[in-house]
Amino acid sequence: MTEFNKKVDLNEVSKFLFENDNYIILCHASPDGDTVGSAYALCRALHICEKKAKVLCADEIPARYDYMTKPVELQEFDHEKIIAVDVADTKLLGALNGLYGDKIDLSIDHHASNKHFAKINYVNANAAANCENIAEVIEALGVKTDKVMADNLYTGIVTDTGCFKYQNTTVNTHTVAAELMQRGADYYNINRVMFDTKSMARLRVESEAINGVEMYFDDKCALMTITAEMQNATTPDELEGITPIPRQIEGVIVGITLREKAQGKYKCSVRTHEPIDASEICALLGGGGHSRAAGCEILGTLDEAKEKMLNAVKSVMCK
Amino acid sequence: MTEFNKKVDLNEVSKFLFENDNYIILCHASPDGDTVGSAYALCRALHICEKKAKVLCADEIPARYDYMTKPVELQEFDHEKIIAVDVADTKLLGALNGLYGDKIDLSIDHHASNKHFAKINYVNANAAANCENIAEVIEALGVKTDKVMADNLYTGIVTDTGCFKYQNTTVNTHTVAAELMQRGADYYNINRVMFDTKSMARLRVESEAINGVEMYFDDKCALMTITAEMQNATTPDELEGITPIPRQIEGVIVGITLREKAQGKYKCSVRTHEPIDASEICALLGGGGHSRAAGCEILGTLDEAKEKMLNAVKSVMCK
Repeated sequence: MTEFNKKVDLNEVSKFLFENDNYIILCHASPDGDTVGSAYALCRALHICEKKAKVLCADEIPARYDYMTKPVELQEFDHEKIIAVDVADTKLLGALNGLYGDKIDLSIDHHASNKHFAKINYVNANAAANCENIAEVIEALGVKTDKVMADNLYTGIVTDTGCFKYQNTTVNTHTVAAELMQRGADYYNINRVMFDTKSMARLRVESEAINGVEMYFDDKCALMTITAEMQNATTPDELEGITPIPRQIEGVIVGITLREKAQGKYKCSVRTHEPIDASEICALLGGGGHSRAAGCEILGTLDEAKEKMLNAVKSVMCK
Repeated sequence: MTEFNKKVDLNEVSKFLFENDNYIILCHASPDGDTVGSAYALCRALHICEKKAKVLCADEIPARYDYMTKPVELQEFDHEKIIAVDVADTKLLGALNGLYGDKIDLSIDHHASNKHFAKINYVNANAAANCENIAEVIEALGVKTDKVMADNLYTGIVTDTGCFKYQNTTVNTHTVAAELMQRGADYYNINRVMFDTKSMARLRVESEAINGVEMYFDDKCALMTITAEMQNATTPDELEGITPIPRQIEGVIVGITLREKAQGKYKCSVRTHEPIDASEICALLGGGGHSRAAGCEILGTLDEAKEKMLNAVKSVMCK
């Protein structure tokens, strides 16, 4: 039986990629800019190395990533080696888990929680985006990053760091960004599409949701509700990035978003500022997450969901 | 009579700063992150060089910059040399122009339109933010950038580039940002305050304004109105950054914001995407500006202002 869980360095990654051929590169399901950027850039680099490679994802790549040139595989091939990029756990492969989950040869990832599920694993959790790791892999392959790869990698970096704003951003993130700009990354248009373009439907829902924000606990807690009706007026893709809004309100340290998922079922997102631990609040309601961002589900009417959530917030804020 | 307009390099700037003493550093009026960051960082560097220096600005520094440590001058001194930072034209000194406008010894700026009004002028228009230039000056002085200076300089860089999103961002911008992070710049909290914090009053006005957005010319043009009433509910500082919203709507290439300044007087901001020239639209109404952002004033009722503006948009869009 093949041994899994082996940790490798960049040299071993490039040795593996040179010695083998016919690659399938897997993105995680509900693909984001980092998994798509990682996969497209690595695939293109492998093509330049005269390897056969293609990208697969369980879900459709959202239309807003259409500007990224999808690598074209002109020749059909039988895959031999499976690579996962930006995938912390095989469960995150979605519908592709059954087919490939236990056959992954190489994993390149940046999640500290990575399960080391592949035969060989390159996991660098210091990278804000997995695209920082892929940039290193491409360099190790001796491939010169062209404009297409630069656009792919830059996309992963800005989407995973909120355009260099999140706490995960490092000195290396900026160093890699500088290199990618030198290689022609279209930073202006990428950031415009990723951060400064919203559909009218999204803006209207955002506006309605903000109008309905309720403030609690001396205005330190803001609660926003996204009703089923508001969700029907938009696509899930259009609503991306709406949950940070309540925490953005001046003076707020606990921002809550309640999304009506079905009659009597609410998906709750909690975002906090120091010193409040979001995961502690959600743990009281059967959920979990990180210290600044966590989630849970609550059953009941909207009023009941609010009451349960606010009780949990109160007990963490007042302890 | 002293000669003005002399262009100098970094060596001459540091020579000037070493050879003289008792500096007043002037910010431009309506101070932004770049002029304040430039002035504070340079002042601190001069203090480290055992020079006397203080910062002056015609207007109060907005409260959102309070996190930047203001350089303290413990000793009163008679100023000998005047420095202007991030000031393209002495007119922009506001109320300080009369006192100092014709006496500026050194100007350090990054505006291509800089008037070279000082005795010696260091103008590097390749810098996205003047803080990039100040970082070079501090290095030329042989001063090690500490955390306080890093926070000042990082602030100027992110505010002038919209956190690395605007077209002025360069490879050097990221290289300097990487260095400042290495020096301890508190990038997470700075970006949070600059970009991800809004007052409840601002959010309510934004929400109301978005609700009232009108679409024209096959949804390629969006028009947003900020009434006097909406402005009364907020401070001008709270409303900063509201004008880009109409252009952010998917598919929009001309975004217009009309602000009611007084009964029968509207201040209009026009933001465009390629190929529409915003300055061409505003020139038809007696205003001006740049290709992507321009402005003008229109007299009349709200309906008349809209009509005049839309006629101008139409004639540029349909030519």
